[in-house]
Amino acid sequence: MATDAAQAEAVGGPDPGIRISPPATKLDFATILGLIFALGLIVVAIMMGNSNANFVNGPSFLIVILGTMAATSVSYTGRELKHVPGIIGNTIVRRSRDPSDIATQLMNIAMLARKRGLLALAGMDSELRKDPFLARAVQFVTDGYSGEDIDRVLGQEVDALAERHRHSASIVRRASEIAPAMGLIGTLVGLVQMLAQLDDPSSIGPAMAVALLTTFYGAILGTVILGPMAAKLERNSNDETMIKNLILTAMGSIARQENPRRMEMLLNSELPPEERIHYFD
Amino acid sequence: MATDAAQAEAVGGPDPGIRISPPATKLDFATILGLIFALGLIVVAIMMGNSNANFVNGPSFLIVILGTMAATSVSYTGRELKHVPGIIGNTIVRRSRDPSDIATQLMNIAMLARKRGLLALAGMDSELRKDPFLARAVQFVTDGYSGEDIDRVLGQEVDALAERHRHSASIVRRASEIAPAMGLIGTLVGLVQMLAQLDDPSSIGPAMAVALLTTFYGAILGTVILGPMAAKLERNSNDETMIKNLILTAMGSIARQENPRRMEMLLNSELPPEERIHYFD
Amino acid sequence: MATDAAQAEAVGGPDPGIRISPPATKLDFATILGLIFALGLIVVAIMMGNSNANFVNGPSFLIVILGTMAATSVSYTGRELKHVPGIIGNTIVRRSRDPSDIATQLMNIAMLARKRGLLALAGMDSELRKDPFLARAVQFVTDGYSGEDIDRVLGQEVDALAERHRHSASIVRRASEIAPAMGLIGTLVGLVQMLAQLDDPSSIGPAMAVALLTTFYGAILGTVILGPMAAKLERNSNDETMIKNLILTAMGSIARQENPRRMEMLLNSELPPEERIHYFD
Amino acid sequence: MATDAAQAEAVGGPDPGIRISPPATKLDFATILGLIFALGLIVVAIMMGNSNANFVNGPSFLIVILGTMAATSVSYTGRELKHVPGIIGNTIVRRSRDPSDIATQLMNIAMLARKRGLLALAGMDSELRKDPFLARAVQFVTDGYSGEDIDRVLGQEVDALAERHRHSASIVRRASEIAPAMGLIGTLVGLVQMLAQLDDPSSIGPAMAVALLTTFYGAILGTVILGPMAAKLERNSNDETMIKNLILTAMGSIARQENPRRMEMLLNSELPPEERIHYFD
Amino acid sequence: MATDAAQAEAVGGPDPGIRISPPATKLDFATILGLIFALGLIVVAIMMGNSNANFVNGPSFLIVILGTMAATSVSYTGRELKHVPGIIGNTIVRRSRDPSDIATQLMNIAMLARKRGLLALAGMDSELRKDPFLARAVQFVTDGYSGEDIDRVLGQEVDALAERHRHSASIVRRASEIAPAMGLIGTLVGLVQMLAQLDDPSSIGPAMAVALLTTFYGAILGTVILGPMAAKLERNSNDETMIKNLILTAMGSIARQENPRRMEMLLNSELPPEERIHYFD
Repeated sequence: MATDAAQAEAVGGPDPGIRISPPATKLDFATILGLIFALGLIVVAIMMGNSNANFVNGPSFLIVILGTMAATSVSYTGRELKHVPGIIGNTIVRRSRDPSDIATQLMNIAMLARKRGLLALAGMDSELRKDPFLARAVQFVTDGYSGEDIDRVLGQEVDALAERHRHSASIVRRASEIAPAMGLIGTLVGLVQMLAQLDDPSSIGPAMAVALLTTFYGAILGTVILGPMAAKLERNSNDETMIKNLILTAMGSIARQENPRRMEMLLNSELPPEERIHYFD
Repeated sequence: MATDAAQAEAVGGPDPGIRISPPATKLDFATILGLIFALGLIVVAIMMGNSNANFVNGPSFLIVILGTMAATSVSYTGRELKHVPGIIGNTIVRRSRDPSDIATQLMNIAMLARKRGLLALAGMDSELRKDPFLARAVQFVTDGYSGEDIDRVLGQEVDALAERHRHSASIVRRASEIAPAMGLIGTLVGLVQMLAQLDDPSSIGPAMAVALLTTFYGAILGTVILGPMAAKLERNSNDETMIKNLILTAMGSIARQENPRRMEMLLNSELPPEERIHYFD
Repeated sequence: MATDAAQAEAVGGPDPGIRISPPATKLDFATILGLIFALGLIVVAIMMGNSNANFVNGPSFLIVILGTMAATSVSYTGRELKHVPGIIGNTIVRRSRDPSDIATQLMNIAMLARKRGLLALAGMDSELRKDPFLARAVQFVTDGYSGEDIDRVLGQEVDALAERHRHSASIVRRASEIAPAMGLIGTLVGLVQMLAQLDDPSSIGPAMAVALLTTFYGAILGTVILGPMAAKLERNSNDETMIKNLILTAMGSIARQENPRRMEMLLNSELPPEERIHYFD
Repeated sequence: MATDAAQAEAVGGPDPGIRISPPATKLDFATILGLIFALGLIVVAIMMGNSNANFVNGPSFLIVILGTMAATSVSYTGRELKHVPGIIGNTIVRRSRDPSDIATQLMNIAMLARKRGLLALAGMDSELRKDPFLARAVQFVTDGYSGEDIDRVLGQEVDALAERHRHSASIVRRASEIAPAMGLIGTLVGLVQMLAQLDDPSSIGPAMAVALLTTFYGAILGTVILGPMAAKLERNSNDETMIKNLILTAMGSIARQENPRRMEMLLNSELPPEERIHYFD
Repeated sequence: MATDAAQAEAVGGPDPGIRISPPATKLDFATILGLIFALGLIVVAIMMGNSNANFVNGPSFLIVILGTMAATSVSYTGRELKHVPGIIGNTIVRRSRDPSDIATQLMNIAMLARKRGLLALAGMDSELRKDPFLARAVQFVTDGYSGEDIDRVLGQEVDALAERHRHSASIVRRASEIAPAMGLIGTLVGLVQMLAQLDDPSSIGPAMAVALLTTFYGAILGTVILGPMAAKLERNSNDETMIKNLILTAMGSIARQENPRRMEMLLNSELPPEERIHYFD
């Protein structure tokens, strides 16, 4: 990184040193393996019990899955629900960036602005296209908005983004709360049916077993699948908000024409210790 | 939209380009279909169990429905309860507006104010009548109030509106919490009655089945119907608050006589990316 | 109201037009009827079950009622508990005022102050005595305190009042949480006693029925009576705080000698649309 | 109190009228009687059931009490746990002060400072020793710190104090949450043991009765004893914070050399109506 | 400590009196003993019941432990999970510092800066290396940043640190919530298997006993082990944040070149009474 900076200082022509790394697609193995392992464990537990019990029951399965989906969709609009597959996909495959990479790239931009002036940033268009938020932020700087304006407008955008993330996570969170309740409702249906023909004692056990299956499915869906996924989405949102806040801090600093060393200090105060950059050493 | 703006600039007479789209009535299919589908699923589940169990029990039904309504109404005044049918209707049929439409219309107003002066806005009366909040906001601008005053007064109105929405949603939220408890109370009544005549074993099953029905009704009412409706109301309130905040931002900006490009930037920072406007391109 | 104002302007002598309406005592029928109806429904449900079960059990009743009272009183002081009957009475009979009436009366006071000077307010003593908070607020104005001082001191009083209301409601809220737990404790006592003499099968049913009665009483006390009452108290507090905030806004505005039209605008921004006043039309 | 003030004005020598009442030790009868009464009720309920059930079981008792203590202590340090007996004692015997007494004494100090200058406060040392917080506050004034400094430093102290109170109450609160869970764990132990020897039907009842005793003890410990005690501690903290805030307001006012009438107004705005002082009438 | 200060004033050469005590490793006996004692109690309770019940069941144990780990890991990334052993270790062995020691050392630094100028602090490098946060803070002072800059940057670092602590504790907190649910899922598996072969009554008891074991394990894992550990982590975070805030307060004060007596007053206002320092007496 220090070499990038040195290069930036040495070269006189259009700056080749400034590259913006676009978010890289990343598989979250902890999430995938966690899901597979947790569900696998339950399957193993079922198979170890040497019993002729049948844990697969299509109707029970459908009432929990579809019922949870239907009751969740009551609280949202069609437009929001269309995003749900993407939201769930985001818990596993996620586009993210290394905070210290983006911090170094922001330092590069600051050095360029310092040496060639703010308008030199306009020449970075092809690189900036990789990150629309950064492109918008740089645009504000080259349009001559003040640091306070940039703080206010980008800050509001970051807040609105975090709010939208929260809203997306809330869909999964709601579903995780509804699933056990749908399981309970299914079990109540089974219990009432069983109790109505209590005169045949031999059917009690199996009927009861089937009735409990919806509670079982609801507990797995809510506790093992949807609940942790909602928590993952909330966690990912924090990650992305941190990246956006780095950009916001850097662009405000550039617009105020502050010393890049000061900007490094500000960026580092937002980064975890192991991600901090040492741009000038 | 850009054509509207161009037109606004060209024409010299009373501006025909400024139209305010009133909130359009919109059916929320996700809510209706979600409700129908969730309840239908439960009916199907009941019918698939080939049992002679009767899931319809008038008195059980009434104790849960009426009991929930009565216990909920303890916490409110008659005046508030009169609004409940309207509140519930709002979860399904809702008057809403496209945020990017209203943003473009606010830009049109800003362009008019810039070209003909703030007083020209007074000529828009017939259009403004479609949106009382916007009309009040424009009135403040033409009355010469400062941007700070407008921010303060309209901000307070938006807060008070959000507070009233929260209050309305809280009625449905309360009912959704009381419903399962009423179901439990009904089941306790049935259980005590059953236990008092335990000497007749053949009656245990059916009596118990009937006792469980109130728990069943209470769970459906609370989890599938009222809970999701309360969440929908909270969600709708956020939507409407966003629209009102756009108007607030725009009117403050017009009163401060800021550059319309700056106002566009401010509006866009509050809008989700796919709703952002490009007024000047 | 406009006539009041006109009159206020015309008459030269001591102003007869300014009347302060004291809070009127109001019965909250929704609360009373809700309670009666909910409890009645449960009684009807009990009577419809043609069973010889006895739902009235003095000792069970006393352990739930008195136990809830005793465990609740652990968290408070004797002084606070003395207010409880009054607090509970407030959920049913309540002294309240119409927000638009008080807003009009505040406008009358503002007009008087504008025409005859702040000291003219001192002549309203007999009217002000009907509302001690308003009297204190007017006193601050006539004593010459600045608008900022009045905002700060009255704001602190309103906060302290809301805090005291919250504290009062918390007593009822606590009781509503303890009641079901006391019911459970009573049921555990009955269960343990029943299990100890399990050798007499004929006594199981009735013993169990009696044991469940405390759970039944606890659920009714907590869910149908105390919980909704606590919510009602929290709701009433919001009402009263709104009235006090109107007075605070008005007195600050008068002390700052602002235009009464501006004060009307400020008051209206705190009022719900249907309560807004049109003083000058 | 008015006489105190008059005296303060008349006498020329070292002021004898200023006395600081130290916090008085007060027994909270509502807490003690509430506890005794609630536990007594449960004992009476047990004795009224003419059953040979034994509700006293040493091991069950120890597992709930000691288990709750052990699991609670996991979350704290030895140093914090040493304070627990004192914290619990504070729910019953408590050192407190009458808010209107302390307000009057603060007014006396303000009058003294006004007449003889801030340094005259230094002569009150022997009285101030009764209240270390007040002594520290007066010290700041006589050391010449500004009103803003005093507001900041004392405000931070009050916040830190409230935080420490919250932390103390949280120990009892945690224990009240762990107690029912320990009861459940004990019952599970008993249930598993009973189920393993289900072949002897005559032992089922008594074994089950004993198993339920830990749930019973846990419910009482959590709901009737620890939960209300934690609420009491939170309540007491609010009381003490109010007293400290009065001192903070008064010392800031004295340091700013404000008119004592203004200080009286500020103090009264923090006091409940029935505690307000009328120092100058 | 006073002697340290006196020495600091007297000696003219490089200051030998300034020593920074690095965080000392501390065993938290309350946590270790609490855990051992709580688990031991449960073992004793099991052994006292003279029953042939077997409380050790490998598969049940694995499904709860591994299932909780797997479902928890769904919500995090591999990188975060790698820190979990360290996080759990922190609840028992913890590096901490005495607040009054660090406060005295900060006073020593302030005295040095006052006598020899801010640049003299640069000579303390070898001592500062023991505490990276303090070293960074001193660096800002010697680099000439203003008190406001230091407040802002270090404040942001402390906030980010507290946020990271909260995130770490949330992993353990999540696990503590998932554990009882995994226990329930395991019990449902066992119940369904048992009910499917209800025709063999002699197997009901033991099968049920085994089924309940997962609930038992889940309750212990969640309530006795993980829940209290999460609370301990949250508590430790508050401790460390307090230390960091002391450093922040001190460095801001040194950068503003305030009187060290004032700095002592500020530090003391953040310390609990028994930790307050008396540096100048």
